[in-house]
Amino acid sequence: MLTFELIHQSKKSRARVGRIHTPHGIIDTPNFVAVGTNATLKALDSTIADDIGLQLMFCNTYHLLLQPGAETIAKAGGLHKFMNRKTPIITDSGGFQVFSLAQGTVADELKSRGTKKYEGGVLKINEEGVLFRSYRDGQKILLTPESSVATQKLLGADIIIPLDELLPNSVDQKTLECSLHRTHRWEKRSLDAHLAHTNNQAMYAVIHGGTNPDLRIMSCKVLTQLPFDGFAIGGSLGKNHQEMFDLLDLVIPQLPGDKPNHLLGIGDLKSLKTVIERGVDTMDSSHPTRCARHGLLFTKQGGMKILHQSNKERFTAPEQSCTCFVCTNYTAAYLHHLFKANEMTGYTLATIHNLHFMMNLMAEYREKILHDEL
Amino acid sequence: MLTFELIHQSKKSRARVGRIHTPHGIIDTPNFVAVGTNATLKALDSTIADDIGLQLMFCNTYHLLLQPGAETIAKAGGLHKFMNRKTPIITDSGGFQVFSLAQGTVADELKSRGTKKYEGGVLKINEEGVLFRSYRDGQKILLTPESSVATQKLLGADIIIPLDELLPNSVDQKTLECSLHRTHRWEKRSLDAHLAHTNNQAMYAVIHGGTNPDLRIMSCKVLTQLPFDGFAIGGSLGKNHQEMFDLLDLVIPQLPGDKPNHLLGIGDLKSLKTVIERGVDTMDSSHPTRCARHGLLFTKQGGMKILHQSNKERFTAPEQSCTCFVCTNYTAAYLHHLFKANEMTGYTLATIHNLHFMMNLMAEYREKILHDEL
Repeated sequence: MLTFELIHQSKKSRARVGRIHTPHGIIDTPNFVAVGTNATLKALDSTIADDIGLQLMFCNTYHLLLQPGAETIAKAGGLHKFMNRKTPIITDSGGFQVFSLAQGTVADELKSRGTKKYEGGVLKINEEGVLFRSYRDGQKILLTPESSVATQKLLGADIIIPLDELLPNSVDQKTLECSLHRTHRWEKRSLDAHLAHTNNQAMYAVIHGGTNPDLRIMSCKVLTQLPFDGFAIGGSLGKNHQEMFDLLDLVIPQLPGDKPNHLLGIGDLKSLKTVIERGVDTMDSSHPTRCARHGLLFTKQGGMKILHQSNKERFTAPEQSCTCFVCTNYTAAYLHHLFKANEMTGYTLATIHNLHFMMNLMAEYREKILHDEL
Repeated sequence: MLTFELIHQSKKSRARVGRIHTPHGIIDTPNFVAVGTNATLKALDSTIADDIGLQLMFCNTYHLLLQPGAETIAKAGGLHKFMNRKTPIITDSGGFQVFSLAQGTVADELKSRGTKKYEGGVLKINEEGVLFRSYRDGQKILLTPESSVATQKLLGADIIIPLDELLPNSVDQKTLECSLHRTHRWEKRSLDAHLAHTNNQAMYAVIHGGTNPDLRIMSCKVLTQLPFDGFAIGGSLGKNHQEMFDLLDLVIPQLPGDKPNHLLGIGDLKSLKTVIERGVDTMDSSHPTRCARHGLLFTKQGGMKILHQSNKERFTAPEQSCTCFVCTNYTAAYLHHLFKANEMTGYTLATIHNLHFMMNLMAEYREKILHDEL
């Protein structure tokens, strides 16, 4: 089971340092959660992710449901054994990708869905759940709160997520409110299904309500009365960073301080510090790893475009003060060359560097919080 | 400089165990040479290649000449420093790829040439050298024996290769003979250019003559009179394995026994043992790494197609007796999944396995030769 240990509450902000204890070890918070959609970080094997010190990895149930299938992973002994990951994993409900497809706002992760043979998409949404068509074999799949939880139990991540409905940003308030109530019913059904077959997994609720403050407060009230192990913040977070920060100012104080929280899908460098100051414990994003594959290296001086001509003969580490495997073994010039030559090795090295950067940054933030400097 | 130490000559065949001493360490022979066209093995960084025990890597001058350019690599301190490889490297003259393009028999390595912007190709071949157009920027480049050697000196590999002419298999004997004489003149000019600026690099001649026994013998006679450090066998080796074996039976005894030899572009599992029995010391091929990226894993029981449905739930190592990083950390089912999901991690893991297999196989052959069992 999961427990949250509060180490220090900053005197300067809502930022806090904690430890989430899980069956597969500790997650120091605040922390960044990298996305390994298909049970692997792109271009990295699991042992490297461990070496870098990635304490929590986010895997996508939707993708794993379709390939290789949850039963196969269960037969392997669960996701950890399947992918040889020793440390914690979180899975989502699968709903996010299904709804993203329906709205045509195809999530980034969907680019990595392997060979697309059929037009995927949502066929029907009703109280029971959501019926969609697999892009892999055209098969119709009904995703319900109960089937999502059953799938996530087969996967066996340390933290699982109840089924929720994802709405387009532009939706009217009436639709948003109806959806929120249904999402609450789905989350309750997910929790019931989870608790009916209790194991060592933990379940985080997902707070919804879009950008409507009243609905967000209501969502917190409804969901915090249920015995969830933690609280994720999902749905539309606003049109810009400031709206998201305001929303966190509203939501975080509504959440129980003795349980961990998670911000879904946010991990861009611009937001991180402010998000942590608002009291966020963990946040996931494919941003740092995707940037890496596009040749954008994170450094303390800002993003470095490795393909820029200025790196052609820069025979020093991409970031000279960096102690990562890449910066101690390779030069910016070599990485520039690998990207120019379209060599996969470049994607691997850039990903290692960016993840190391994120882990380091998070350790620095934790240190600052401990000294009430953030 | 390079020296060859003969450890044991098999009593059973022409197979022999030796050690090639180079400025960057020892190459135990017989040995397999993996191809890292663009100054990297595909999907592997240099430290992993070292970990696997790859003692000699083949890099392609043609590719490096066009990207990042030999001057850039020289400024980095040479190929070893540029790519952080501690152990020996061999480069070719660049001619092979130029002529492959001209003949339309585009070599496999050319698939990895990055963004092709211009139609590459040979514009002119004469006594001076070969004029071709870069596929990267449309620039005309003249490759001569002298410019090839100058480029390879900038790259700084332990072993370099003189410029030769590659002919189509179907060429008539008159053309072959004319070409052979020119190749001999080019090789002599290459050697002169090499010796005029002597450093710690070694140069292997390339024996030509196609499938004509008389011309092969003549090529050996001409080239072994020159102070080359070793002898590579190039050009057309025949239409099938048997023709190649017969050709090696003819050529190898013509080469000085106190110098190393190398078979260019051959490394398929079917040929290896027989080729080694013929007395070949080293051989290069992109076959094992290319097979890996196509999901064909080498095992003692033969090639294993990882995408085959039978691997979907095979929760044991790809090869159970194998001690490689992949087989000790991952299952066939996981690799099957990675390939199904088009995850780059799959290419990396399969490449590690196949290279480990090759290194192990070579160690076994050396052991057998030492006991006169091969």
